[in-house]
Order: sequence, then structure tokens, then C-alpha cells
Amino acid sequence: MTTARRARRRGELTVADIARLAGVSAPTVSRVINGQAGVALDTRRRVEQVINEHGYRRPEHIEPAAILELVFHALESLWALEIIRGVERVAREHELAVVLTEMQGRLTPGRAWTEQVLTRRPTGVIAVFSDLTTAQQAQLAARSIPLVVLDPTGEPLHETPSVGATNWNGGLAATRHLLELGHRRIAMISGPTGWPCCRARLDGFRAAMDAAGVPVDPELVRESILYVEGGRRDGEALLRLPDPPTAIFTANDLQAFGVYEAARRAGVRIPEDLSVVGFDDLSFTQWAGPPMTTVRQPLVDMGAAAANLIITMSRGDTLPGNRIELATTLIVRESTAPPG
Amino acid sequence: MTTARRARRRGELTVADIARLAGVSAPTVSRVINGQAGVALDTRRRVEQVINEHGYRRPEHIEPAAILELVFHALESLWALEIIRGVERVAREHELAVVLTEMQGRLTPGRAWTEQVLTRRPTGVIAVFSDLTTAQQAQLAARSIPLVVLDPTGEPLHETPSVGATNWNGGLAATRHLLELGHRRIAMISGPTGWPCCRARLDGFRAAMDAAGVPVDPELVRESILYVEGGRRDGEALLRLPDPPTAIFTANDLQAFGVYEAARRAGVRIPEDLSVVGFDDLSFTQWAGPPMTTVRQPLVDMGAAAANLIITMSRGDTLPGNRIELATTLIVRESTAPPG
Repeated sequence: MTTARRARRRGELTVADIARLAGVSAPTVSRVINGQAGVALDTRRRVEQVINEHGYRRPEHIEPAAILELVFHALESLWALEIIRGVERVAREHELAVVLTEMQGRLTPGRAWTEQVLTRRPTGVIAVFSDLTTAQQAQLAARSIPLVVLDPTGEPLHETPSVGATNWNGGLAATRHLLELGHRRIAMISGPTGWPCCRARLDGFRAAMDAAGVPVDPELVRESILYVEGGRRDGEALLRLPDPPTAIFTANDLQAFGVYEAARRAGVRIPEDLSVVGFDDLSFTQWAGPPMTTVRQPLVDMGAAAANLIITMSRGDTLPGNRIELATTLIVRESTAPPG
Repeated sequence: MTTARRARRRGELTVADIARLAGVSAPTVSRVINGQAGVALDTRRRVEQVINEHGYRRPEHIEPAAILELVFHALESLWALEIIRGVERVAREHELAVVLTEMQGRLTPGRAWTEQVLTRRPTGVIAVFSDLTTAQQAQLAARSIPLVVLDPTGEPLHETPSVGATNWNGGLAATRHLLELGHRRIAMISGPTGWPCCRARLDGFRAAMDAAGVPVDPELVRESILYVEGGRRDGEALLRLPDPPTAIFTANDLQAFGVYEAARRAGVRIPEDLSVVGFDDLSFTQWAGPPMTTVRQPLVDMGAAAANLIITMSRGDTLPGNRIELATTLIVRESTAPPG
């Protein structure tokens, strides 16, 4: 980040400046900045507009609280736990308390969350598999609260630093593995392709197929939810086709477990009749029946990387870059074999 | 909880009273109560002794922060995630932020944690599979900060409310199931029996064996760690015996996965040659090879129950009791069958 951008991000106005520009008293400005009640909606909006336009310079003596906010779209799988562990590791080193919020499947936090966070004045916010609205991002930026997104579900503002894995490479490696085993009718059950991480896995799949000169049958590419239920439903649909696939690559391990279930119900054996590759390498995939071939994401390290970005930004230091991608690794186990 | 006990818990002295008894100034007492630095160790101890002996009445105008502290021994498995989800659910209803701390396998939080928590003035503390020292419990009680333990690892102070599952009944049901299938050489891989939840599972196992008139072979009862590695190691030792067991009941699902691995390496088929029963019913046990018979603990509900106890105590309301046990359920899948 350049010095000029840092200056803009960190804001130039004091409370007194903002009060003058908004035509209100300084205590009113403080109440808005601290997220306290007792300010008329109209006044609050006027103050926020000035802050969002010009920024706000936090006085040297107001320290952010030793809190790191960690927001999850959902706490549904080991996937979340590993990210939490990585964030905890870095937070512990820096004596930050981790405040964990689950949004019960919503992708954007509500107004109550925003108000609570502004009141808590955290050292930073990490949003996992979720996104803040442009207004929420501006509210944090105006108060010099750093934001990092991990696996963003929308296109983040260009300036918002983000952390992810090399999803495209993972999709490519998984598909190459199936091609090298001799598969040609390869299906992909994708996650929602509006989410960059899912879109990249699908693009990696297509790139490997193209490179091998194997046409992608549109009937074999399905977009589904990232849960077991999605994999089961789309797995069943694929296995019912007149010319079913001999291999299925899924966008995460939970979907792959759904495919296991669909195969079991259809009397299809893995890997004799059907090869399956997952994505994530959640720890229990190694004890699945059969142990699962999957693409490993370094989730603990991704959580740690996001927390380290917050630490760097909270010190006003220059970031190495606005996007960190950690490497994925193909883990070959027993759910893949040459086509029967 | 009786009114008399509540009065004692909540304390009777004001800051001025404590200052007089300890022979220090009122601001010094405040600094100790708020966990701030700048008080000589000697003075701090004298003030803490007075508080611990007589209690401290929080002034009406000092509200606890809208924070719930959640402390884990380790974040190793889905087990932890389900408890977190239950706590989050209740915290959300009451607009409390959940501060999550992992102790990296330690069973008692360190001094730094205590100081940070006292500074944050949380609404309450939930300790999962861990215990606070007597001194730490007294420090919280003196400041009217409620404490609840979930699956305590030591004998909690009689007054500390705790939440768990009906572990003894779960051990009994699992063992009865194996006996009814016709097994007689039944092994148990226990967790550390110094921990009440593990001891109760083992006692349930023994009770079922006694009731069926089947003697317990001491060689078939092993105490191990609650991780995959423990189940694998002790599973291998059991399978190497001259007269190996035909069934193994483990103290948790991770140990059962270790037994799966030991059986795979020894060429022993589940369930044809060996029946296995786990404990917890973590979601992925249903996709294991073979799907696992296990004892379900209602972990989400246990987390929610612990958080609800905190809410009740923070209001000064009477608790329904000092110990809540939620029911376990035997889930029969495909890892158990009559002996071959």
C-alpha cells in the first residue's frame, strides 16, 4: 500500500473538523463514531457522510480494543474450525481476544452487528465466506478499523485485502489426476459460481479438460450448494443419466460425501465404478469409506494469514499485497482409480 | 440456589469497605478489581484476600460488558464446533459477543488469560473440558462474574454449575447393544478416568457387563487419550492379544476412527470380524467406512444450556439446579454385528 493511500485510508479530519463540517457539536460526532445511541437518524447520517467523504484521524490516545472480530457465514463444518484455529494462534501471540460471530447462513451481517462492532472498537475485522456491504466497509474504513476477507463471496472492493487458496490450481490438479487415470466422462459438481473461490475451481477443471483435448459435456457440469445434501442430490442426478460419468470432482468434501451417499444408494462402488475427488481435505476424509482423494486447502494457515494482515494494517505498516493465495495440494487416497 | 448462597456469592462489600479492611486507597482497590497494572504484588494480594473472604458488591451503575467468554482446552474436532454453535445461538438472542479462547491442550488457563478476562468484565465465563483453579474461580466469584463448566476435567467446586450429557447411560446403552448382539469378549478404550465424563462412560460399560453376568477381563480395559492416535495404538494392542476382543467400545468417535485404522492395518474387517461403537456422533461418522454405530451427545444443546445458565445467573435469578445432564442416544449403523 502506498503512503498516499494509507493517508487517505486513515483519514485526515479530527472530531472538531467533522463537527464543523456537519454543523453539529463535537460530543455528537463522538457519539456517532463510538456507535452510541441518542443521536437523531438525520444527524447521524450527516456526520457519517462527512466521515465517509473525508475520513477520520483517530486521536493518538484512543487505542483500539484488544479484540479481533471474526465473522462466519455459517459454522457448519471442520472447515470453519480450522480457520478459527489459525486466527486464534496469531491472536494469542498478539494478546487479542477473538470475538466470534455466526450469521446463520446470511452472507452480509445485519445492522445490529455493525453497531456492536463499532462500539467495541476492535483492532480489526475478518469476514469469512461473507461480505460486508459497501456502506459497512466504509464505516469501518472511516474509523480506521482494518478489514480482511477470507474466501469472499462477492467481488470485494478493490482495496479490501483478501486471503484464499490457489483454487484454480486445485481444480486443475484434481482434474488432471482423473484424466491421467484414463477418465474421459468426468463430471464436476461446482459450488455457486458467483463466489470467486468456486468459480476458480470450475475454471481449473475446464482448463485441464481443454488442455487434454477432452470436450466438457454440459450435462456433466452442475452448480449446487456446498453441503452434503447438494452433493447427494446432484450425484444422484448424474448417476441416473443414460451415459453416466465415470468420475466426479466436487467443489468441497461435504459434496463429495453426498456423492458417496448417492453411490451407495445406487449400488455404485467407489472407486471400482466411480472415482470421486473432493476439495478441502477435512481431517475425517482419511477415515471415509473409502478414504477420499481430495485437494488440500491449508485452512489453519489461511486463518493465520488473515490475522497477520490485520496486525500489519493496524500498525499502519505496508502490506505485501492486497491478495494472499496459499498453495493447494492434491492428496491421493482410495476413492480414485482407472475407469472400470 | 438459595437466597443465602446468592447473597454470599454476590458479595457484600463496597470498594470503600474493601479499601478500609485492606488498609489501601479506594482507587487501588478499583485497579485490582479491574485487573489493571500498577499495583504492587503485595498490595494486590492483600486486596484479593479481602475480596475472596468477604465478596464484593458490584455497584449498580457498573454493568458487565456484553461479552460471553468461551474457553476451550483445544479446538481439535467437530465436537468443539457444535458446542460453539449452541453457545452462539443463545449469545445472539441476548446480544452478547462470544470471545473464544483456545488453550492449546492446557487444562487450566494461565495468568494472562485471567487478567484479560477481569479487564473485559464479561457477563459470564463458560469453560469447556477444562477447569479454572480455585483461585481463578474465587477471582470471578468475588467480581460477580458467573462461571459454568461444560464437561469438567476435574471435580468442580461444589457450587460451580456444570453441563454434561448422561455419560453413564450412554456407556450402558452401547455395551448392552454389543451384549445383545451376542458379544462376550468386549473391550473398552476409555478416556482419562480422572475426568468425570470419561469415568462415567467406563462405569456404564462395567454396569452393563455386570448386569449381564459377563466378567470384565482387565486386559480388555485400556485408558487412552481422546484422539485418533490413542484409539489406533490401543486398538492395535487389543488386536494383537492371543484372545482378542470381538467388539470394542471407545470413549469418543476419534478413538473409534483410530480403531478403524488399526483394524485396516491388521486386516480385520468391521463389522464381520470386529464390532466398534464410538461416542459423540460427530456428523461425519455416518459417512465412515463402514458408517459408525455411536452414542449421540446433544452437543449444540449442551452449549446452549451452558449459555442459558450464564444468562440466568447474570440476572441473579435462581438456577433450576447446579448440574444439567442432557440425554445421550445410541445410534446404530453398520459398524456393529453379531460376532463372526
